[in-house]
Amino acid sequence: KNRVLVTGGAGFVGSHLCDFLVNRGDYVICMDNFFTGDKSNVAHHIGKPNFELIRHDVVQPIFLEVDQIYHLACPASPIHYKFNPVKTVKTSVMGTMNMLGMAKRVKARFLLTSTSEVYGDPKQHPQTEEYWGNVNPIGERSCYDEGKRIAETLSFDYYREHSVEIRVARIFNTYGPRMALDDGRVVSNFVSQALRGDPLTVYGDGSQTRSFQYVSDLVNGLVTLMEGEHTGPFNIGNPGEFNMLELAKLVQEKVNPEAPIVYRENTADDPGKRKPDITKAKTLLGWEPKVLLKDGLMMMVDDFRKRVLGDA
Amino acid sequence: KNRVLVTGGAGFVGSHLCDFLVNRGDYVICMDNFFTGDKSNVAHHIGKPNFELIRHDVVQPIFLEVDQIYHLACPASPIHYKFNPVKTVKTSVMGTMNMLGMAKRVKARFLLTSTSEVYGDPKQHPQTEEYWGNVNPIGERSCYDEGKRIAETLSFDYYREHSVEIRVARIFNTYGPRMALDDGRVVSNFVSQALRGDPLTVYGDGSQTRSFQYVSDLVNGLVTLMEGEHTGPFNIGNPGEFNMLELAKLVQEKVNPEAPIVYRENTADDPGKRKPDITKAKTLLGWEPKVLLKDGLMMMVDDFRKRVLGDA
Ligand SMILES: NC(=O)c1ccc[n+]([C@@H]2O[C@H](COP(=O)([O-])OP(=O)(O)OC[C@H]3O[C@@H](n4cnc5c(N)ncnc54)[C@H](O)[C@@H]3O)[C@@H](O)[C@H]2O)c1
Ligand SMILES: NC(=O)c1ccc[n+]([C@@H]2O[C@H](COP(=O)([O-])OP(=O)(O)OC[C@H]3O[C@@H](n4cnc5c(N)ncnc54)[C@H](O)[C@@H]3O)[C@@H](O)[C@H]2O)c1
Ligand SMILES: O=c1ccn([C@@H]2O[C@H](COP(=O)(O)OP(=O)(O)O)[C@@H](O)[C@H]2O)c(=O)[nH]1
Ligand SMILES: O=c1ccn([C@@H]2O[C@H](COP(=O)(O)OP(=O)(O)O)[C@@H](O)[C@H]2O)c(=O)[nH]1
Ligand SMILES: O=c1ccn([C@@H]2O[C@H](COP(=O)(O)OP(=O)(O)O)[C@@H](O)[C@H]2O)c(=O)[nH]1
Ligand SMILES: O=c1ccn([C@@H]2O[C@H](COP(=O)(O)OP(=O)(O)O)[C@@H](O)[C@H]2O)c(=O)[nH]1
Repeated sequence: KNRVLVTGGAGFVGSHLCDFLVNRGDYVICMDNFFTGDKSNVAHHIGKPNFELIRHDVVQPIFLEVDQIYHLACPASPIHYKFNPVKTVKTSVMGTMNMLGMAKRVKARFLLTSTSEVYGDPKQHPQTEEYWGNVNPIGERSCYDEGKRIAETLSFDYYREHSVEIRVARIFNTYGPRMALDDGRVVSNFVSQALRGDPLTVYGDGSQTRSFQYVSDLVNGLVTLMEGEHTGPFNIGNPGEFNMLELAKLVQEKVNPEAPIVYRENTADDPGKRKPDITKAKTLLGWEPKVLLKDGLMMMVDDFRKRVLGDA
Repeated sequence: KNRVLVTGGAGFVGSHLCDFLVNRGDYVICMDNFFTGDKSNVAHHIGKPNFELIRHDVVQPIFLEVDQIYHLACPASPIHYKFNPVKTVKTSVMGTMNMLGMAKRVKARFLLTSTSEVYGDPKQHPQTEEYWGNVNPIGERSCYDEGKRIAETLSFDYYREHSVEIRVARIFNTYGPRMALDDGRVVSNFVSQALRGDPLTVYGDGSQTRSFQYVSDLVNGLVTLMEGEHTGPFNIGNPGEFNMLELAKLVQEKVNPEAPIVYRENTADDPGKRKPDITKAKTLLGWEPKVLLKDGLMMMVDDFRKRVLGDA
């Protein structure tokens, strides 16, 4: 039986990954410190014979016997990772080192969920995996961006130095059910705002672009990568590119045409555009995303309706 | 009395900094694990009332009461930092965090010796402090380059989050007496080779450029930065730019015209050119380097002659 550790497993992406792995019969250990994740995201697995939940901070060493490690633990949205930047760096660096140390000790395969933020405010468009990025090392986003860059560095050093079987995914903006309501990311903001009838807050002039991937496509990509023979890094994202004003209009159309659009000042070092080149994942992994933004949004709205309007 | 901690104080730059500080009457604590440094570099201070040597690895916490911390501890030459890349990352990240933790606790001022390598293989020439760099996050040099980038990130996060008085210097290639003979850096290689009558090993076609600063100019810059009111980052280097073939020819001319030049394959991700724009340091700190390469080389040769020929 495949024993799988999912760090950050009670978070948005982690809980969907746990769903997939538990359902196919793996033995899943979900580890989380519940900083941004929530027990309710995996509550439906508690009590199952092939599921286990551990409250643990990945910055501290922990010794487990597993075959695969999906290492997701890390605050992922700007308001969360800026809350305590030093802690964010510790989570990225020491957390990743601990999980690589474990992978080395028990000869487990290790997958890092890195991010498109390693490309920073990119000067290459769309971004390929060869691009070295344009990241501010000393800005307010640096704890996250540089934290992930050095987590990649560590992964490749453990690969070269200790032959740990690593897999590195560079995840592009992902959305779906169970996103934290308070995480300030654009899709969750717009959908909550639209459901409440509040104005949709477009930062800057709304011309900055992102490419949004539905969470089931991501889970698929992560599992395919873990099971395949290539270390990566691989871009895992949906190449459909939208600017924030287009997104706001789509959310109006799909969720609530009455919710107005308002403009707010943008945050520092916000990347102007972002879109993955996924040729490498298509070619080497045979993976590509399937869910269109307009369809994914509708699947997310059901979940958000319950939580947002339940909240009110 | 000014109590100063110099981490990496038994290394090349650190020992010259200790000389300066001890001589002006500060109380100097030199901390080193002697990975690349050597006790002999500070032997002349042992026994002085205002000097203390501590054998300690900066990756481990340590509690001292000081007013200023010059944080230099980190292997600096490619062959040393590639020897154990994971340890290099630990030194950069955990070492810097420990020293920032100390600075926070005792309200000391903290100076990080960062590096021009944060600019990677630069697409801007010469490099200003605003440039975000072009660094490979997953290559063989990444443990050093990304390690220093995240050390800068941490410094600025402690500054913003905990009001630690930080100073960040981005040091460009520096040479002088007491460089490790086996460190593989170009100036020490060429000078040792010339003294031995061995061929000078030019990597690649020798057209890549660097800007070489004599160590006394650097010590001056670091002290000026520490004592001033600006956090930086500041480029501290000599803008005089030479390619490696020019450097080899200059060393032939100054040290041994009989030593031939040979070409060797270059290493991965070697930056094509590098030259500091030092306008910011000139303007805000009133600092600039004074020693010309040809003069600095001669001051270095005396020391190398003793050590290289003593070795033989
Ligand atoms: N969602 C995206 O758009 C996106 C994009 C790029 C990368 N990623 C990466 O995917 C991973 C998951 O992101 P997410 O969107 O699910 O975010 P999330 O915040 O919902 O999940 C992160 C989980 O990690 C946990 N965690 C945080 N610090 C921890 C620590 N020190 N110890 C143990 N657990 C800790 C949190 O409690 C949470 O459950 C992250 O590594 C993130 O960087 C996500
Ligand atoms: N010399 C240059 O051209 C140059 C250029 C850019 C930046 N720098 C930076 O300046 C600093 C000093 O460089 P250097 O040229 O004197 O190199 P060096 O190798 O001579 O000195 C580094 C010192 O740090 C010590 N050290 C290493 N790891 C340690 C650890 N874990 N705990 C305690 N001590 C440790 C070494 O023993 C050595 O004495 C480094 O931080 C380096 O990155 C130097
Ligand atoms: O099952 C394990 C094995 C290691 N580690 C931690 O992972 C880190 C890196 O381990 P490694 O063996 O690579 O390095 P070292 O212990 O030599 O520093 C260390 O802090 C270990 O405590 C862990 O948490 N669980
Ligand atoms: O309410 C919001 C939240 C975010 N954004 C913008 O949406 C984009 C994506 O932001 P998010 O935080 O979701 O992801 P990231 O910046 O990490 O890609 C950025 O340009 C934000 O400025 C926005 O216009 N309104
Ligand atoms: O004089 C000191 C104070 C702190 N630290 C270490 O520096 C790190 C960061 O300290 P900080 O207080 O910022 O963080 P925390 O202890 O809350 O993690 C910790 O690992 C401490 O052990 C140290 O080595 N010497
Ligand atoms: O024997 C040597 C050692 C280095 N180099 C080259 O000199 C430059 C400076 O190398 P060094 O290691 O001194 O410093 P860094 O690369 O860190 O600037 C690089 O282009 C090296 O390829 C060389 O030509 N011969």
